[in-house]
Amino acid sequence: MIKKDKLYNVVSTLCSEESYSEVAFRNRFDKQMPSVEELGKAVELLRSVLFPGYFGSADFTPVNQHYFIGSNLNKVVEILNEQIKRGYCFICPEDKKDCDKCDKKSKDIVEQFLEILPSLRHLLVTDAIAAYEGDPAAHSPSEAVFCYPSLRAMINHRIAHELYKLAVPLIPRIISECAHSETGIDIHPGAQIGESFFMDHGTGIVIGETSVIGKNVRLYQGVTLGAKSFPLDSDGNPIKGVPRHPLIEDDVIIYSGATILGRITIGKGSVIGGNVWLTESVPPDTRVILGEKCIIRKPEGE
Amino acid sequence: MIKKDKLYNVVSTLCSEESYSEVAFRNRFDKQMPSVEELGKAVELLRSVLFPGYFGSADFTPVNQHYFIGSNLNKVVEILNEQIKRGYCFICPEDKKDCDKCDKKSKDIVEQFLEILPSLRHLLVTDAIAAYEGDPAAHSPSEAVFCYPSLRAMINHRIAHELYKLAVPLIPRIISECAHSETGIDIHPGAQIGESFFMDHGTGIVIGETSVIGKNVRLYQGVTLGAKSFPLDSDGNPIKGVPRHPLIEDDVIIYSGATILGRITIGKGSVIGGNVWLTESVPPDTRVILGEKCIIRKPEGE
Amino acid sequence: MIKKDKLYNVVSTLCSEESYSEVAFRNRFDKQMPSVEELGKAVELLRSVLFPGYFGSADFTPVNQHYFIGSNLNKVVEILNEQIKRGYCFICPEDKKDCDKCDKKSKDIVEQFLEILPSLRHLLVTDAIAAYEGDPAAHSPSEAVFCYPSLRAMINHRIAHELYKLAVPLIPRIISECAHSETGIDIHPGAQIGESFFMDHGTGIVIGETSVIGKNVRLYQGVTLGAKSFPLDSDGNPIKGVPRHPLIEDDVIIYSGATILGRITIGKGSVIGGNVWLTESVPPDTRVILGEKCIIRKPEGE
Amino acid sequence: MIKKDKLYNVVSTLCSEESYSEVAFRNRFDKQMPSVEELGKAVELLRSVLFPGYFGSADFTPVNQHYFIGSNLNKVVEILNEQIKRGYCFICPEDKKDCDKCDKKSKDIVEQFLEILPSLRHLLVTDAIAAYEGDPAAHSPSEAVFCYPSLRAMINHRIAHELYKLAVPLIPRIISECAHSETGIDIHPGAQIGESFFMDHGTGIVIGETSVIGKNVRLYQGVTLGAKSFPLDSDGNPIKGVPRHPLIEDDVIIYSGATILGRITIGKGSVIGGNVWLTESVPPDTRVILGEKCIIRKPEGE
Amino acid sequence: MIKKDKLYNVVSTLCSEESYSEVAFRNRFDKQMPSVEELGKAVELLRSVLFPGYFGSADFTPVNQHYFIGSNLNKVVEILNEQIKRGYCFICPEDKKDCDKCDKKSKDIVEQFLEILPSLRHLLVTDAIAAYEGDPAAHSPSEAVFCYPSLRAMINHRIAHELYKLAVPLIPRIISECAHSETGIDIHPGAQIGESFFMDHGTGIVIGETSVIGKNVRLYQGVTLGAKSFPLDSDGNPIKGVPRHPLIEDDVIIYSGATILGRITIGKGSVIGGNVWLTESVPPDTRVILGEKCIIRKPEGE
Amino acid sequence: MIKKDKLYNVVSTLCSEESYSEVAFRNRFDKQMPSVEELGKAVELLRSVLFPGYFGSADFTPVNQHYFIGSNLNKVVEILNEQIKRGYCFICPEDKKDCDKCDKKSKDIVEQFLEILPSLRHLLVTDAIAAYEGDPAAHSPSEAVFCYPSLRAMINHRIAHELYKLAVPLIPRIISECAHSETGIDIHPGAQIGESFFMDHGTGIVIGETSVIGKNVRLYQGVTLGAKSFPLDSDGNPIKGVPRHPLIEDDVIIYSGATILGRITIGKGSVIGGNVWLTESVPPDTRVILGEKCIIRKPEGE
Repeated sequence: MIKKDKLYNVVSTLCSEESYSEVAFRNRFDKQMPSVEELGKAVELLRSVLFPGYFGSADFTPVNQHYFIGSNLNKVVEILNEQIKRGYCFICPEDKKDCDKCDKKSKDIVEQFLEILPSLRHLLVTDAIAAYEGDPAAHSPSEAVFCYPSLRAMINHRIAHELYKLAVPLIPRIISECAHSETGIDIHPGAQIGESFFMDHGTGIVIGETSVIGKNVRLYQGVTLGAKSFPLDSDGNPIKGVPRHPLIEDDVIIYSGATILGRITIGKGSVIGGNVWLTESVPPDTRVILGEKCIIRKPEGE
Repeated sequence: MIKKDKLYNVVSTLCSEESYSEVAFRNRFDKQMPSVEELGKAVELLRSVLFPGYFGSADFTPVNQHYFIGSNLNKVVEILNEQIKRGYCFICPEDKKDCDKCDKKSKDIVEQFLEILPSLRHLLVTDAIAAYEGDPAAHSPSEAVFCYPSLRAMINHRIAHELYKLAVPLIPRIISECAHSETGIDIHPGAQIGESFFMDHGTGIVIGETSVIGKNVRLYQGVTLGAKSFPLDSDGNPIKGVPRHPLIEDDVIIYSGATILGRITIGKGSVIGGNVWLTESVPPDTRVILGEKCIIRKPEGE
Repeated sequence: MIKKDKLYNVVSTLCSEESYSEVAFRNRFDKQMPSVEELGKAVELLRSVLFPGYFGSADFTPVNQHYFIGSNLNKVVEILNEQIKRGYCFICPEDKKDCDKCDKKSKDIVEQFLEILPSLRHLLVTDAIAAYEGDPAAHSPSEAVFCYPSLRAMINHRIAHELYKLAVPLIPRIISECAHSETGIDIHPGAQIGESFFMDHGTGIVIGETSVIGKNVRLYQGVTLGAKSFPLDSDGNPIKGVPRHPLIEDDVIIYSGATILGRITIGKGSVIGGNVWLTESVPPDTRVILGEKCIIRKPEGE
Repeated sequence: MIKKDKLYNVVSTLCSEESYSEVAFRNRFDKQMPSVEELGKAVELLRSVLFPGYFGSADFTPVNQHYFIGSNLNKVVEILNEQIKRGYCFICPEDKKDCDKCDKKSKDIVEQFLEILPSLRHLLVTDAIAAYEGDPAAHSPSEAVFCYPSLRAMINHRIAHELYKLAVPLIPRIISECAHSETGIDIHPGAQIGESFFMDHGTGIVIGETSVIGKNVRLYQGVTLGAKSFPLDSDGNPIKGVPRHPLIEDDVIIYSGATILGRITIGKGSVIGGNVWLTESVPPDTRVILGEKCIIRKPEGE
Repeated sequence: MIKKDKLYNVVSTLCSEESYSEVAFRNRFDKQMPSVEELGKAVELLRSVLFPGYFGSADFTPVNQHYFIGSNLNKVVEILNEQIKRGYCFICPEDKKDCDKCDKKSKDIVEQFLEILPSLRHLLVTDAIAAYEGDPAAHSPSEAVFCYPSLRAMINHRIAHELYKLAVPLIPRIISECAHSETGIDIHPGAQIGESFFMDHGTGIVIGETSVIGKNVRLYQGVTLGAKSFPLDSDGNPIKGVPRHPLIEDDVIIYSGATILGRITIGKGSVIGGNVWLTESVPPDTRVILGEKCIIRKPEGE
Repeated sequence: MIKKDKLYNVVSTLCSEESYSEVAFRNRFDKQMPSVEELGKAVELLRSVLFPGYFGSADFTPVNQHYFIGSNLNKVVEILNEQIKRGYCFICPEDKKDCDKCDKKSKDIVEQFLEILPSLRHLLVTDAIAAYEGDPAAHSPSEAVFCYPSLRAMINHRIAHELYKLAVPLIPRIISECAHSETGIDIHPGAQIGESFFMDHGTGIVIGETSVIGKNVRLYQGVTLGAKSFPLDSDGNPIKGVPRHPLIEDDVIIYSGATILGRITIGKGSVIGGNVWLTESVPPDTRVILGEKCIIRKPEGE
């Protein structure tokens, strides 16, 4: 049993003004933080709505499809109404009355988000087919839907991106970080990604906020679409929101470990070799490979 | 509260024929999808059977070892019987009567799988010793068993690989993806890996389906054993199952970030340097390193 | 239903002396293994104590801060007392009476650990501010606290490192591996890391046991601070604990995929380019970049 | 740690033929027992379907009522299909092929059961109104629906009774016993109970299998509607299914602790006093009271 | 698989106007029902606050008592704020703006309730001592606190009664029904009960809304303190709130199965025998017993 | 948000010496209370060991019966070792070293308890057959095992009684109260009950500590076997452990609501009628019935 003084002293210190800082203590106690767990549930439910029969309870059948999709979607609405409101509250000025605004904004956005779902499903189906076509180890698009990290990451991303476009704060980022943690794929919710997108293996892929990716693009593990540098404002803080990541045109393949940096364009149909470090635009149909092969030292006497 | 029309319209659209596609809707509703959660439990139980006293409930003692192992193994049998059957159903033609076949096949395979467990434990013990010997930060093989990602990934892989050899569909992949998500190590269940295998740190390692790895091999984080390209059939789809990944002979070490591509052979005892990009075979005892060092620009005035 | 003989035979084999090995069976059955789950809870609770209002139940307010922090901290004490004792037992010689010693050592260490918490919070606040300042996509330090992998990894690391310094066996490693699994960032608990540390994206970062990192350092995804090689003792086992990882001075930035190996020094204010492979010290304010750009093959006819 | 021999000996004895009996071991291992837990879930779901907005998740609104009721009802169908099948299997002769019959019977019955639900709701609404009208402490019929043991017991009973009428084995009894355990009210699923039925307080009420109760009847705690005796067959076993419990006509009130035994009739509008022991029929509008008041011994000197 | 039409028809009927009634559908969908589960948690927490070391997590010690009690009490405040508000909403007229009033009323009441806790503890301690003194099978008052149904019921009752006195709707009843379900003891929250109250065995005890019980009273199982009849208003509905249950003075003992009905007084120190049916007042120190013993028919020939 | 002062004042008062009493605060903080939840688990496991195939996981088969029973029994041993130790600690004098004694005593008792299990199963099988034979509504002894409150109560009682005979403090009572809460049947663990015992309906039955019941006895709901009065010691406290409850000989039937009080004997084969109040011994084969029938007042004019 710990000595009473020890415990009380530490608690007092941790509650003291000296240990206090705006960062360590959230001082808007009347506003709840978004719940990562609830957002995880919303994504689970959306997955079951977009791909019924794969995910969610095993009881989906043609008989009950309206009820299954309807009730799951209604739960999504409930969760997002609350969580998006909390996202707005996270950044709104402290005056409490604003929170009615946050509430209203949240509900408007959820209604808009709902209408996008059919097109989201269409996009994700193209991603599943791309996975099947791009991976010789895949047996069917269904297998990709059910267990490929690329699809898991893209479901989260395409949801997060729609919320990002609707200017929802914080929530898209949380949804993306969930996929990041599960798959090792880090796509910023701001990234624009066209149909039929596939990431093989995926671990270590990074796609920055202002990236724009065309149709039918394939990335391998460890690819970075990053920023080369970013301008600072007069206070030395990075200026937010400036386009600083690559434009990848249709039909591009980028092999593992390649790094593409800055607001450059990779032309349609180009192929970027593994481990390449690229900071300038290339025209369509270009092949970029490592400049120098490695040195092979055979054993002595050979 | 969302407007009733909004919700009903989206549900109707998501249930409509236009939004329907073979990929988005599984249409064989009488066949349940395998359960990722149940397979996770089976692996947990196998872990407790293979390394009793490390995993599973804290009540393992010499007194009750037969009961502990016997009852956990019996639960594994129950789970695998059901899940492997679902794996077969996932790919079997739709006619329902076939599922008795799936059921029978599943039970046969589980019996075969059981018999392999003692040898599986033997292999995994060599992996634990290899981890201890290969990592200066390790204090004992036991520590590696208990908390090294390499061991966690190899338990899943060696289980998945046996099921893969028994031609079980889908299930091995799910087991591998679980380890991939937890450790960032992506080993295709088809890969053949010899005893005393160790992956230090592990994140980002990719080992392709037709890779063959000898004894006493060590990989570091970010190593890829991949395919260079793959032949397409006359419809433009990748031809499945062709050997297309490297053969790594005994006693090879491959440092972080190295990429080995294609059906090439890395000779016994070779050492492949970090970040190397290698697409041709090398004889035994070869050392391969990066061709060019980096450029170091000291600060001006120096 | 599996045949009875099959099941009994496999169980017998798995319980037999032949299948027995010191690694496969823990033979000190009177000592419980540490619980990964309980340690996870302790970290969750510490997170809520260090950043009240962000984590833990939603009911933190200025009114109840002493109670909230005090009762969570008390639970931490309970968990750590038990788990650290188990860590000691894991390595203590078998004689049971020693475990009273383990118990006492554990309690002493937990008391010491408590006193470090205020300084730990201070360090983590600097990390949150560094994240905000280092990432143009970040909107506030609070956002970094709440959902950045870098912060999540650093909370675990800074806790694990304190326990490592107090010579607690096994437990620090388990805490680090939890963060590794969640974030893909692998920091050995031995690594010394100064204030205002930020890892952008993070996946694939490896920081070795004897690394020393100054203030205000920033790493990108896939950076390795590793050992070049390690001396073996006369039995061929690696000698543990020798300093073998880099010293990174203040204000250094290391871009994605760079590999820094061995007991070298990266001088204050240096910038290491992406994918660089570096095995020699560099003076302050040095810029290191890849030696050779890649080869760009434009399409024929251009 | 228990001695190994002790444990093994007890287990052997408990597995031995001597300890074996038809009762102790179920020998039809291929047939699963019904799940009390699953049936509890089915009743919960039915409660939410019959009284939406009171029970079940908080998200019921006019907007989503079809989805809410449809998806909950579909889950009820799933659970009852499986559990009723198990009920049939519990009593069907051992030959395994019969279980297809059990399966089909179960599905037929669930379809029939569904159609009764609207009338079940109607009956339960009359019960709620009867509770409000019969208890001066009640504030509204809604309060009775939400928290009166009488309603809780009647929801279970009216469901169980319908299944009993459909000749489902075992399942109705399990559903009744759940309510018995929760409320202390023991109504056999065979009992026929008319509309507007209310049991005040309820604890200790027993209503036997062949009881028939009219409309608008009110019982108080501890009332028994039992059998006086029951005929034995030539083997001395009780003959099952013979009418042996009372007929209670409309508008009867029976006060606490009264015992009514045998196939007698309590005529319309009668009132049976507390603690009465009654074994003969009474005509309509009769009042039955205790024959003798108690003896009151005032203190000496008074 | 159920036929689609069947399912859709039943759902339509259950959603139709015909099946609709004010009782079956709650039509104030913007107001959530109180949560029985949350109120159960609040009572658990209050139990741990009133009897620390008996209930709640095992980590209560003198060191952390302020934190333990403070943080549990704070959780109670959170739960009651929300649930009492819902209780008010359950009965408030439909206009939504009133709910701010409900919210304010709830908070005021919780503050008042808090202040009563020390006296509540005092009363419950007297109840525990009464249990010890009244039951020869009890070994200590602590045992009574920990596992006697009487104490469990009285904790719920004394909490519910305070809320009843503060005019909280619905919530006190829910708290009482929880204890009723667990213990078979049904005490209306309105009943006034003095200190040192003990109910042995308890099952079947009923204590009505307007009962008043003095100090040091003991009841046995199956005792009813009920109403003899109740006046109806001009519409035939029972008039609520009229005193209609007995007054039991100090030091009274009432044995099992006795029924005391109507607004009568049982004088100080009286003893009421088992199974007695009593509807008139008795002076102090009276003994009431059954008027007639039973008839004993010895076997023939004796 | 509650006012800070309010909360702090109440907490302070609740932690103050004035509010402190030996009953309210357990002051032996180094000794944990037994866990009702863990004891519930132990009973569940014992149920699955005594009636395999009825209770516990669905995976019991002839193939794995040794493993199933062995591993469940081993878990029982673990739980009882700990909980019985806590039971001893609850009453042992405060000096901490005694707890090693408590630990040893607990382990000895658990070993003795194990050996009784086969005979316990035998007794419970006779109880199940008695239920079948005594209830015309029962279809098989199996049905009684699976869902009759009588069996549920007797499983708990027969376990609790063995522990009571072994002089285990507190734990038997907790096990009995669990059954009391679930079934409304209150059997003191001290009661001695012979084979083939059946309680129909059961609610409200009370069987006191020193009751002795022969073979083949049947009780109905609401029967009390109680004490008439109990001697007080010179301090006015009840003297514990004096025989004060009835002796019921073989083949006795006692109908609902009967009350038998004091150390009297009900002779073999007697039948006690409902609602009878009996305080004197009766010889074998006696029938006891209510002395006076009720008064039946037919409606006027008849």
